[in-house]
Amino acid sequence: LQRVLVTGATGFIGRHAPALLAERGYEVHVVVPTEEEAAVAKPARPHVADLLEPGAPAEVVRTIEPSHLLHMAWYVEPGQVWSSLANVQWVEASLALLRAFGAAGGKRAAFAGTLTEYGHPPDGVAREDTPLRPTNLYGECKAALGRLALATSAELGVSTVWARIFFAYGPFERPRRLVSSVTRSLLLGEPAPTSHGRQVRDYLYTPDICSALVHLLDGELEGPVNVGSGEPVSLRDVVGRLAELVGRPELVEFGAIEPGPNEPAVLVADVSRLRDEGGWTPAHSLDQGLELTVEWWRRTLTERGELPADA
Amino acid sequence: LQRVLVTGATGFIGRHAPALLAERGYEVHVVVPTEEEAAVAKPARPHVADLLEPGAPAEVVRTIEPSHLLHMAWYVEPGQVWSSLANVQWVEASLALLRAFGAAGGKRAAFAGTLTEYGHPPDGVAREDTPLRPTNLYGECKAALGRLALATSAELGVSTVWARIFFAYGPFERPRRLVSSVTRSLLLGEPAPTSHGRQVRDYLYTPDICSALVHLLDGELEGPVNVGSGEPVSLRDVVGRLAELVGRPELVEFGAIEPGPNEPAVLVADVSRLRDEGGWTPAHSLDQGLELTVEWWRRTLTERGELPADA
Repeated sequence: LQRVLVTGATGFIGRHAPALLAERGYEVHVVVPTEEEAAVAKPARPHVADLLEPGAPAEVVRTIEPSHLLHMAWYVEPGQVWSSLANVQWVEASLALLRAFGAAGGKRAAFAGTLTEYGHPPDGVAREDTPLRPTNLYGECKAALGRLALATSAELGVSTVWARIFFAYGPFERPRRLVSSVTRSLLLGEPAPTSHGRQVRDYLYTPDICSALVHLLDGELEGPVNVGSGEPVSLRDVVGRLAELVGRPELVEFGAIEPGPNEPAVLVADVSRLRDEGGWTPAHSLDQGLELTVEWWRRTLTERGELPADA
Repeated sequence: LQRVLVTGATGFIGRHAPALLAERGYEVHVVVPTEEEAAVAKPARPHVADLLEPGAPAEVVRTIEPSHLLHMAWYVEPGQVWSSLANVQWVEASLALLRAFGAAGGKRAAFAGTLTEYGHPPDGVAREDTPLRPTNLYGECKAALGRLALATSAELGVSTVWARIFFAYGPFERPRRLVSSVTRSLLLGEPAPTSHGRQVRDYLYTPDICSALVHLLDGELEGPVNVGSGEPVSLRDVVGRLAELVGRPELVEFGAIEPGPNEPAVLVADVSRLRDEGGWTPAHSLDQGLELTVEWWRRTLTERGELPADA
């Protein structure tokens, strides 16, 4: 039996995981912090537990006895994620979860890491062996957990892959992020102020990110793996495409916002490991993903009554 | 009031800490895992708790409300320390301890790190900014905890120093270590087989190591600091000196043991930060420390009846 314990299964990326895992024949158990989220997580089997409570990770593993672990849960409060001490709590909880998983006979694990582990690579391109130089507590915690999770897994006899996820966009994105805020403004006919837009990034559609994580978990690749599209794009091109899709290019105000003082010019992923060793490529082009995201926002804003039904 | 919480205060290095802290005017509270160790730790105020129990670190801090933290406790079982999962548990417990300490208003912390964080520096000399490339789980855990403890302290407003301790010798050393095993054999008139002895190391007398930790805690230096003598010595010279002190040079068998396959030729500390910025130098030369160690073994073996009282 392939029984997978999934954390973060109601999140921006993780919400696509239960269906993808069920398709591959897994018995899917999700751990969620509240009864409300348990309802969202169906048809997967929900277990309500706060993994940050001392002792909770071991208790959850005892109950589920999983053969596989897909750990995506983390603290994600906007504006506070970079420096919150909750990052440290998640390191503790994640290690306790992995130890319990291995001790209970778990075999294969995938963890959600982040591009933030790299900090700012000198040439803007992050390869899996690029030295990790995180610039904030979030990045420090994910980088340290990544190294520890892999070293711990080796002693536990657990086969573990650590997915460093790059820039994400898609349905359910928090409203202050680039793609969500620009799309929403354009649909509502409001000005969409952005920075100069010359920053180059690696953007991937969240259902594809989650598909990559599930593909990795279901495979045998071990160690760190970048998860991105492998196709660098300027923010100007992303925003320009959104404006075309909505048909309101005149609302975009490039240069109206100062970019952050430490924002790198280029920050992209080398995805050759994911593609060549992992055998995975995205199902959606950037154009397709942005189109689906605009449609999702149009539907969502209409349902909320913020957009007239005939817009 | 300067109230210090000490962990590891009954260990090989830490056992010298309570007296040194009391001399400097601290109210000394030590956390020990058993009632037996509580007896050893007097006259410091003992608190019996297993810091690896979920929730225990926070509970201990709540009870003591310390202004200072000297955290030296770790898993030290010989032969298992390099790969034991207890290392991972100590990362979790140490982070929980630091978070609780900071949340309760703690101001200044010192942690025991290790040369093992460095792995094998290319030229054999470890400076604080030498990239950390640990080669086992113990080193991975200490290295990760060091980075996390410093990043977490910055957010907590705790001033923290991370002491990377090099090779230690002195009273109470476990019997299979180089200085203890050679000294014991020589005193008992037994052969003392060693490797070729050309390895160069940085050895420091444990009361001096502990004095450095207490000095650092009582000061203001932050970040990683190597703790060593700064005087490289070959193992052959260490063993030769022990043989002279006991007066049995003919018992030493250099070359009788194969050195480990990955044993570096040179592994020494650059201690300029400890000396110049920290203002600390050892009270004992290697000769003095070895002499005191031989005397301690002679006394201990006599008390145990392994050595006749008139030897």
